[in-house]
Amino acid sequence: MLNFCQFGAGRIGSIHAENIARHGAAKLRYVVDVNTTAAQALAQKHGAEVVSIEVALADPLVGAVVIASSTDTHADLIEASARAGKAIFCEKPIDLTLERVESCLAVAKGAGVPLALAFNRRFDPSFAELQRRLVERAIGDVEIISITSRDPAPPPVAYIKVSGGLFRDMMIHDFDVARWLLGEEPVEITATASCLVDPAIADAGDVDSALVTLRTESGRLCQISNSRRAAYGYDQRIEVHGSKGMLRAENQLPTTLEIATESGVSHDKPLYFFLERYAAAYRAELEAFIDAVTAAEAPSPCGEDGRRALVLADAALQSLREGRTVKLAP
Amino acid sequence: MLNFCQFGAGRIGSIHAENIARHGAAKLRYVVDVNTTAAQALAQKHGAEVVSIEVALADPLVGAVVIASSTDTHADLIEASARAGKAIFCEKPIDLTLERVESCLAVAKGAGVPLALAFNRRFDPSFAELQRRLVERAIGDVEIISITSRDPAPPPVAYIKVSGGLFRDMMIHDFDVARWLLGEEPVEITATASCLVDPAIADAGDVDSALVTLRTESGRLCQISNSRRAAYGYDQRIEVHGSKGMLRAENQLPTTLEIATESGVSHDKPLYFFLERYAAAYRAELEAFIDAVTAAEAPSPCGEDGRRALVLADAALQSLREGRTVKLAP
Amino acid sequence: MLNFCQFGAGRIGSIHAENIARHGAAKLRYVVDVNTTAAQALAQKHGAEVVSIEVALADPLVGAVVIASSTDTHADLIEASARAGKAIFCEKPIDLTLERVESCLAVAKGAGVPLALAFNRRFDPSFAELQRRLVERAIGDVEIISITSRDPAPPPVAYIKVSGGLFRDMMIHDFDVARWLLGEEPVEITATASCLVDPAIADAGDVDSALVTLRTESGRLCQISNSRRAAYGYDQRIEVHGSKGMLRAENQLPTTLEIATESGVSHDKPLYFFLERYAAAYRAELEAFIDAVTAAEAPSPCGEDGRRALVLADAALQSLREGRTVKLAP
Amino acid sequence: MLNFCQFGAGRIGSIHAENIARHGAAKLRYVVDVNTTAAQALAQKHGAEVVSIEVALADPLVGAVVIASSTDTHADLIEASARAGKAIFCEKPIDLTLERVESCLAVAKGAGVPLALAFNRRFDPSFAELQRRLVERAIGDVEIISITSRDPAPPPVAYIKVSGGLFRDMMIHDFDVARWLLGEEPVEITATASCLVDPAIADAGDVDSALVTLRTESGRLCQISNSRRAAYGYDQRIEVHGSKGMLRAENQLPTTLEIATESGVSHDKPLYFFLERYAAAYRAELEAFIDAVTAAEAPSPCGEDGRRALVLADAALQSLREGRTVKLAP
Repeated sequence: MLNFCQFGAGRIGSIHAENIARHGAAKLRYVVDVNTTAAQALAQKHGAEVVSIEVALADPLVGAVVIASSTDTHADLIEASARAGKAIFCEKPIDLTLERVESCLAVAKGAGVPLALAFNRRFDPSFAELQRRLVERAIGDVEIISITSRDPAPPPVAYIKVSGGLFRDMMIHDFDVARWLLGEEPVEITATASCLVDPAIADAGDVDSALVTLRTESGRLCQISNSRRAAYGYDQRIEVHGSKGMLRAENQLPTTLEIATESGVSHDKPLYFFLERYAAAYRAELEAFIDAVTAAEAPSPCGEDGRRALVLADAALQSLREGRTVKLAP
Repeated sequence: MLNFCQFGAGRIGSIHAENIARHGAAKLRYVVDVNTTAAQALAQKHGAEVVSIEVALADPLVGAVVIASSTDTHADLIEASARAGKAIFCEKPIDLTLERVESCLAVAKGAGVPLALAFNRRFDPSFAELQRRLVERAIGDVEIISITSRDPAPPPVAYIKVSGGLFRDMMIHDFDVARWLLGEEPVEITATASCLVDPAIADAGDVDSALVTLRTESGRLCQISNSRRAAYGYDQRIEVHGSKGMLRAENQLPTTLEIATESGVSHDKPLYFFLERYAAAYRAELEAFIDAVTAAEAPSPCGEDGRRALVLADAALQSLREGRTVKLAP
Repeated sequence: MLNFCQFGAGRIGSIHAENIARHGAAKLRYVVDVNTTAAQALAQKHGAEVVSIEVALADPLVGAVVIASSTDTHADLIEASARAGKAIFCEKPIDLTLERVESCLAVAKGAGVPLALAFNRRFDPSFAELQRRLVERAIGDVEIISITSRDPAPPPVAYIKVSGGLFRDMMIHDFDVARWLLGEEPVEITATASCLVDPAIADAGDVDSALVTLRTESGRLCQISNSRRAAYGYDQRIEVHGSKGMLRAENQLPTTLEIATESGVSHDKPLYFFLERYAAAYRAELEAFIDAVTAAEAPSPCGEDGRRALVLADAALQSLREGRTVKLAP
Repeated sequence: MLNFCQFGAGRIGSIHAENIARHGAAKLRYVVDVNTTAAQALAQKHGAEVVSIEVALADPLVGAVVIASSTDTHADLIEASARAGKAIFCEKPIDLTLERVESCLAVAKGAGVPLALAFNRRFDPSFAELQRRLVERAIGDVEIISITSRDPAPPPVAYIKVSGGLFRDMMIHDFDVARWLLGEEPVEITATASCLVDPAIADAGDVDSALVTLRTESGRLCQISNSRRAAYGYDQRIEVHGSKGMLRAENQLPTTLEIATESGVSHDKPLYFFLERYAAAYRAELEAFIDAVTAAEAPSPCGEDGRRALVLADAALQSLREGRTVKLAP
């Protein structure tokens, strides 16, 4: 039985807590959150206790932590948890600066603890199946990947300001997906972007619509399209072209219903946002983490995947500022 | 908190037990099964106890029972549970003979207990949404309904022999769906059928492929197509034509993946069978039952729905034998 | 070069005339129509001449006729054309009474002329491909066929009155499709029907919504659903279930456009009506006729197919009136 | 009646000739081709005459020319036809160098003749409907456009060598589509590309897989994905995201057939290549040209559209070579 301490009792924290509870080989022991009301509610629901960080990490029965607190606390919690010898499952990002990410990775490595990063896309059943088929060479060699990721609506500008910007906050998921599917590290990156959704986002120094192109050593290509707005809901699609065909994963719909009337034929909009769309992925990612820790295997994606995605995000920003293709070490 | 005793610890029983456990206002207290190994395993998983029928029904803390044992035990368990004053959630069918069904309904009515029948189709998210849209008159007046229901493969002939035959065992679900969507009781029924899948089914006196047509007083029509075989998996579709358009619910697929190669463009087959396809429906039907019992409201579908579906199944068989349309009281 | 005389210069006549003109090995020589304005216009467009029936049939250069005049003239024109030794391509129906159909077939047979019947469904590219795949046994043995055929709106009641009724006028196409795909002659037929679209249709003694079930000697089943109304346009679909899978042909859409907005995701309605939906079929059926006549081969579908479809229509009507399954000679 | 002289009697020339013949207000008078056998065959089919360029252009009855000869003859024929006062419908490209394109435009302008360029995508029924909906603001303001264009297989390397390269030969269509849909001129362009399909293409100095990003003054974005290979056929899709939703046009399939078996559910591959896919577009583009010339209106797209697309192709090549975003005058 793997006992968990969970940092963060918000929306995403509640989901992770439920998925721990659901797993036969795991148990939620502690909940830590500065919002003690939320912490109490979540702890009570799952028969856990609300304690301080120190108490939680000092308990030798705690084998693993889930870090789902606010972004600015991630790095400190990773380091503290690593030093306490706990296996770590951390919501993205590790941190918004590469330096801090690298220090976290060093601490985790030094402590010999596994550090998993919650890139949920890899656990979406359709995306995961796409990747399996790719690895089985169902479409031969990868040639061009196209990733579309659009949020239904932009977050508050207050969030934008502390988010690290679109590339580090939103497209970071797509950078990870790109690396996962390309099967090679990108060596060139080029970004183009605009602020089309809300001028306040531009005022905050960010963009809300962006196109990024990646190229690997052997010439494989990837294009990523991001927007903070999609009137029809959360748009999450992947299309991979290979030498022998194409694989694509479309959006998921709440029902299979179709209605045909005088005014046309319609079906449902995609599931609204990440909590709904990635519900199965959240279950699967925690299950994979628990299984890996239990089996003493390295979890995947890991801290290094988080670092590499951040390198791409930083390079995208540099490309955008300098109006040129940025080269990367493979 | 509604305490449950569950009769039957098989495949479907395990699902109901899990859905009781998942519900915040319900608890599994007892498991009863002649297979004590299965009963123990299920009880242990959910912190319940294995007891006899008598002990379970004598416990005043038990408010409700789930009957998911073998078909031939349903009627006895309904009557015993009713007499013990328990709310009843029963897997279909109540019984294979109309007489016994009527006696069960009388006993439940006499005891003043709610009797819900597990017609899971009504709780499938796509079918339920279709029905909501129909009731909202999204396509005007119902004109023609088409229900397709095909199992991936036939059950063992030993099961066929005690099943009551295709109309009572399989199409009974579609008769309930038809009644639910037609909004009126059928007054005419006509059946045509064949044995095309396995001659052993014919030897057992049953058919494996059947078409049935229903007609209501006002002239609404419904066609049902059943087969014990579908090479591509479990085929469960509904199409409703109304004066202002069509509503249809297609099969559910495990992923949204599409692969395009030299040999064509393909996607997944439908979810394999009822446990997968109706997973959400099983959750929703038990939730609806718990909510109804808790609120002291009548659950739906109820025992009377079970009786009416059986009347249609019997009439279909009569139509098939006599080669004519059979009239029914509205 | 096969020279044609065409009887009828209306909508469907214009289409056949154009398809004759388009064919490299055929030429429209004469147009005959009681509406001389229409006849002149059509003749002029294609460099043909307007003449009387007698003149046209007396011309030895005329090798073939297209009969696209009003239904009540078909039988006379078939007999006159046959006696004049012309190859005949006739719009459905040959006649509304079986007696007259049989006399026409006898005359054509006596004269040794080919008599093709314009059952256009067989030439629709999707339906034709479905049938080819069926014959290649792509889904094994045929088990259950489902044919949906719905007109966008009912014809004028004046037409209904002379049409022979829904079974002879509309479902006759589906009877032919059923025979073509079943690969065996139906030996049982059962009909259920209502008047749901327009009470004036009931007053005219007809129905506007009908379900028919067919069964062949070996037990293959077919269900046909017809309605004179479909708010979303012309609905023409076929679904065939076999021992190894399913083949289905869906409706054709004018464009592949999809629009996703806050209010849902929509695409086009089906092509509006037969002139648009079966444009390719009209071309292909005349091409097949010209090719057959040129090669001195028997055209298909032929007069006998017309007769058998009418036998089914008559039997459907009898089944409806008598409330029972009607047996047919195989 | 508009009399045409057509230059070029190859595959695409045959299609244009047929579409002239089909039009009620146009007639093919002359065919000119160095391959006299092809010229004779095409002329004979349509009742035209084979003559020299000089004879054709000297005939005052000739009102218009179609230029469908080899690329290296386009510019000379445009200038000669313009000087002879003929309306010009020219296959793309006008020429592979911007200088020569500009001189052609100047000559046409000087002569006061209309010069239409055959960018067939604009006339594809689905793409044209997409553009109409866009102009009607069905999805609000344009934000991000995504164009996918993949040939089923690369042309011979001999052709690649004289083609002007992927950007001028293939992506030029997509540059035109981008301009047409963006509603603003691009001011920035960035290209990334590889040779993944055939090393012989790299040896010829070209690429076969390319991603290009465009940005307009107001920040609208467009990404274009091109490949010389698609195992599943000709892939031609457009997706437009706007402030109020998305419009997308998918590939066209030969039939609507679907087959479901034990091994999955499949449908047709897209129509194989441009002759099939753009058959309706070829008809519509010539019809639009004839209508414009007849009505003395300016045809669209015109020579200037050809010039602007070439400017984008040249800039894409420059971006690729220099590894940076290239700015363009709006």
